[in-house]
Amino acid sequence: MPLAVMPEKPAPTVAIIGLGLIGGSLALALREAGEAGELLGCDKQADAVAEGIARRVIDRALQSPREALAQADIIVLCVPTMAAADLLADLTQEAARTGSSAIITDVASVKGGLEARMLAQHGCVPPRVVLGHPIAGSERSGVGAARGGLFRDHLTILTPAENTDADALADVSHLWRAAGASVVCMAVSTHDRVLAATSHLPHVLAYCLVDTLARSPHGDDVFRFAAGGFRDFTRIASSDPVMWRDVALANRGALLEAIDDFAQHLITLRAAIDAGDGDALLQTFTAAKTARDSFSALQATRGRS
Amino acid sequence: MPLAVMPEKPAPTVAIIGLGLIGGSLALALREAGEAGELLGCDKQADAVAEGIARRVIDRALQSPREALAQADIIVLCVPTMAAADLLADLTQEAARTGSSAIITDVASVKGGLEARMLAQHGCVPPRVVLGHPIAGSERSGVGAARGGLFRDHLTILTPAENTDADALADVSHLWRAAGASVVCMAVSTHDRVLAATSHLPHVLAYCLVDTLARSPHGDDVFRFAAGGFRDFTRIASSDPVMWRDVALANRGALLEAIDDFAQHLITLRAAIDAGDGDALLQTFTAAKTARDSFSALQATRGRS
Repeated sequence: MPLAVMPEKPAPTVAIIGLGLIGGSLALALREAGEAGELLGCDKQADAVAEGIARRVIDRALQSPREALAQADIIVLCVPTMAAADLLADLTQEAARTGSSAIITDVASVKGGLEARMLAQHGCVPPRVVLGHPIAGSERSGVGAARGGLFRDHLTILTPAENTDADALADVSHLWRAAGASVVCMAVSTHDRVLAATSHLPHVLAYCLVDTLARSPHGDDVFRFAAGGFRDFTRIASSDPVMWRDVALANRGALLEAIDDFAQHLITLRAAIDAGDGDALLQTFTAAKTARDSFSALQATRGRS
Repeated sequence: MPLAVMPEKPAPTVAIIGLGLIGGSLALALREAGEAGELLGCDKQADAVAEGIARRVIDRALQSPREALAQADIIVLCVPTMAAADLLADLTQEAARTGSSAIITDVASVKGGLEARMLAQHGCVPPRVVLGHPIAGSERSGVGAARGGLFRDHLTILTPAENTDADALADVSHLWRAAGASVVCMAVSTHDRVLAATSHLPHVLAYCLVDTLARSPHGDDVFRFAAGGFRDFTRIASSDPVMWRDVALANRGALLEAIDDFAQHLITLRAAIDAGDGDALLQTFTAAKTARDSFSALQATRGRS
């Protein structure tokens, strides 16, 4: 008697709205993993769509994001942070009107604004909406910079609500694991505070330092004589200014708190330098080195896993 | 009639005082280039000397730095910044007493303190003393981390005084070029200001950020969810705390100025975020990206040259 075979769930049709670095890399990762059915794509910029098709990042173009509601199983909003809220509002309203059961997820760097918009519009985050954020990126941008390995050994944070559909959450989790990421879930407020500290604040500091030096009377010399430590420290200042303006505005509250914590500590360090208090400096530098070395070890473990 | 052949200048005997990352790497670079005669070494730590001989970083150990005055053509002080002034004072005094013509140079990250010490002691920087600073390093330290390629495609800054012996300057320049570095000369005060901006300030900011996050109530999460941008941004916070305490104290004046310039700019950026002034943020971020991209291009050119 032949064994009964469970029918395999077919690979989902995935629509990528916004064909930039993240959207393009996700499409490539899913294709390389064989974990997507048809890959649909949509972008305001016609040349991004053309490049996406030419590079076989996507299979077929959609004329508008709304078309995805009827044609895709999972819709991934990969537009800039500020545009994501309007798009999510429009798609969830249209999904409610048409009865679409497509799962909608996103990749925006800040989650609080999207959640607030959903609460205002629907009284809750709709069950088929799973807000998310892959913690990966590059100082390069655009679909031309997309690569399938971008999420490998990286985390994707999902921020499900109490009423989030369990199947929708599982499908979005599966999508990111298929793309090579590990998936963790946390509250929206935790996400925004953690990202303010580890990503948004460092970007502000890097932009701030480079602009300070560029304006200084010795600007030319400064860059001429800078070395490897400076190169690494300021790499993120080459990131897309529009994206980071939007992130800074979208995560204003948590970012201001992070800046204030940092500034308070910098004032203390400055006072120690001014006073020639070597013990205080050594204590801070040593504590920082210990924490940074632990972080390194953690990253190395993750890379091997 | 045979052509007259100029006798080649024999490769100098070089004494490395302080067998750490920099001293060890210089010795290895000179050996690999075939540009040193005997390589002598000296360190307070007996195991550093033993490791230096075992790894063939140096050929022979000196019992004390003073022995180098009679045995070496060039003495390179590779001890920590704070120890360099005392050592330089002792060796220049002993050189004056014994009539040694050995060239003395150093690698300390801050030059002002050494210059001031020489002025106080001798009324000038002695002609055979050439203060210098290779702009290279690593967050690793110790002779075990030494590698011959450390200075390749990097700059070494020399800060000759008006009365510096031209031959001594040429010999020290040659030494660093043999080790793979490009050599530039500038005033001590310029050096200390430029390094405060491009190196000492970034280290303080990186230590400050990592320590701020480590102390925060969400410290564990923060490091768990940090990604590549954070890793690069904070790499220099793994640097040797004792070395950087000394640098911060030795370059106090220029570092405080650099911190204040930065803090002033951070206050302006914070106000723009608080006010939701996207135009101001975009202007700063764009200017910084432009400057950083130019710096990248400059570095790429240097790497190819």
